[in-house]
Amino acid sequence: MTTIRPEPLTAAAFVPFGDVLEATGTPDRMINEGLCARFHDRARLDFGPGGRPGISIFRAEPRSLPLTLSMVERHPDGSQAFIPMDAHPFLVVVAPDRGGTPGTPRAFLTAPYQGINLHRGTWHGVLSPLHPPGIFAVIDRIGDTPNLQEHRFRTAYQITT
Amino acid sequence: MTTIRPEPLTAAAFVPFGDVLEATGTPDRMINEGLCARFHDRARLDFGPGGRPGISIFRAEPRSLPLTLSMVERHPDGSQAFIPMDAHPFLVVVAPDRGGTPGTPRAFLTAPYQGINLHRGTWHGVLSPLHPPGIFAVIDRIGDTPNLQEHRFRTAYQITT
Repeated sequence: MTTIRPEPLTAAAFVPFGDVLEATGTPDRMINEGLCARFHDRARLDFGPGGRPGISIFRAEPRSLPLTLSMVERHPDGSQAFIPMDAHPFLVVVAPDRGGTPGTPRAFLTAPYQGINLHRGTWHGVLSPLHPPGIFAVIDRIGDTPNLQEHRFRTAYQITT
Repeated sequence: MTTIRPEPLTAAAFVPFGDVLEATGTPDRMINEGLCARFHDRARLDFGPGGRPGISIFRAEPRSLPLTLSMVERHPDGSQAFIPMDAHPFLVVVAPDRGGTPGTPRAFLTAPYQGINLHRGTWHGVLSPLHPPGIFAVIDRIGDTPNLQEHRFRTAYQITT
């Protein structure tokens, strides 16, 4: 079984997969009489034809490492953002697309105060908090299509610490 | 100076102003082979003509109570959701509209794992975390209009503990 070691999540490393949502660098503007920094419009949202954006709340079972990764999924019709509602790191698993199926996955460990936006069609593992209660706000496509493709790996990967 | 005491934030009390984004009640569906509860499409989003949704990150100076409330603002062209990226409570100030100006404000104190979505045009106070670093994901309208009205109260209110 191939093992994958999580990398720290950075915007540069995550470019092929999506956006890192965080308060870094120079704010785009100061609002509220200088009391609030706005890092403006940081996600490439795309809800496709016939879709609209929605905010849902996910509560996922915490996982722990090492973790067996046997499948990934993707949403062909829309982007999907995950905003953690506490400051615990969580695990992000993504994979490049290789002609319609996922290539070798990569794993990232978030820092406190990082969220992500997966670009439309990005292969990814299921939501994997590492601490309870695992509550996230999710901004994704509301629509009538199934908007889900799953891929089960012939041989599972193991994500280690 | 009129004093206002914060109420606990509940969905029922917040109906006139917006949506409470939280994982309560029965999930709308279970996903990821039963490992994740989805509370589906919980915000009334409205980005108006010529607008589109965006995700921005706000980092606001923490405030403390008692707090002097001298003004509120509203965004006539779009809804605005605030998702705290840690589990600290924050202060939410809103006011009903009375013919184009705000009526008497109300204050709410969130519980951990609660976010809010202010409906389009709702009068509200500026983002008021009570703990550092005060980082929130904000889902609001990206567009070319000013989308901001401010109202300064003739007499300020004091929000107490």
